[in-house]
Amino acid sequence: MERIDQAQARAWLATAVAEARSGLAEGGIPIGAALYGADGTLLGRGHNRRVQDGDPSMHAETAAFRAAGRQRTYRGTTMVTTLSPCWYCSGLVRQFGISRVVVGEAETFHGGHDWLAEHGVEILVLDDTECTALMRDFIKNSPALWNEDIGE
Amino acid sequence: MERIDQAQARAWLATAVAEARSGLAEGGIPIGAALYGADGTLLGRGHNRRVQDGDPSMHAETAAFRAAGRQRTYRGTTMVTTLSPCWYCSGLVRQFGISRVVVGEAETFHGGHDWLAEHGVEILVLDDTECTALMRDFIKNSPALWNEDIGE
Repeated sequence: MERIDQAQARAWLATAVAEARSGLAEGGIPIGAALYGADGTLLGRGHNRRVQDGDPSMHAETAAFRAAGRQRTYRGTTMVTTLSPCWYCSGLVRQFGISRVVVGEAETFHGGHDWLAEHGVEILVLDDTECTALMRDFIKNSPALWNEDIGE
Repeated sequence: MERIDQAQARAWLATAVAEARSGLAEGGIPIGAALYGADGTLLGRGHNRRVQDGDPSMHAETAAFRAAGRQRTYRGTTMVTTLSPCWYCSGLVRQFGISRVVVGEAETFHGGHDWLAEHGVEILVLDDTECTALMRDFIKNSPALWNEDIGE
């Protein structure tokens, strides 16, 4: 598998950011994600739905994974997420053999992406300032909701 | 927190087994789970819904977690599942701080429960013969579907 280049990763991140902004506009937690196929096709996209659906199981990554429907294999796929994936979403990536994770930022929350790298998943952290600003503002304005979403 | 006793664990496992049997009757993957509160209240129950809903994100544990709705804390809760939790579901347990996992069996599939134990989650594996028989028959009859469900 070829390593992903930064320009491609940033283009894909825009989809995840658009999802995060949709979630924020709905009054939800501003984290978005998208799952891209080995050939670059968008398989699924989604955002955190804790507030909107009262559903704690729909983190951005699980929502994108769900939207992609049943897939026979995840080999060569890339999960793009605005924020470092928590253990739940990192476990998803490992279990299903998603090949790569593009992380918008890992500054406001450091999840399991190092663990994934140890297990052979290609990780690219973009240190995207828009993603960081989205989360920083959200955590400042809604600390209780944020802690609920990560079980703290 | 008190350690769970075997009789309590087996009583709770019956809920998860009933869920697994419901899933099987629907033509689905026979894995069931239930989340119990610190006070022994049933918070949520569910089963794998890959086939029924075309939803790969609904493993038994995530379905039970989802059914429980939004919770402020998972301290003292117990996830009861008919089968050793995969990395996805193990990540769920770790991220949300679910205190205990009761595993029906870990013979047909060995997921992340050792990793959870290393991270302070109380694990009880019951080696339940009914759970093992359910999965053994299912894997024999539907190997492709089973591999799809665990990303292999």
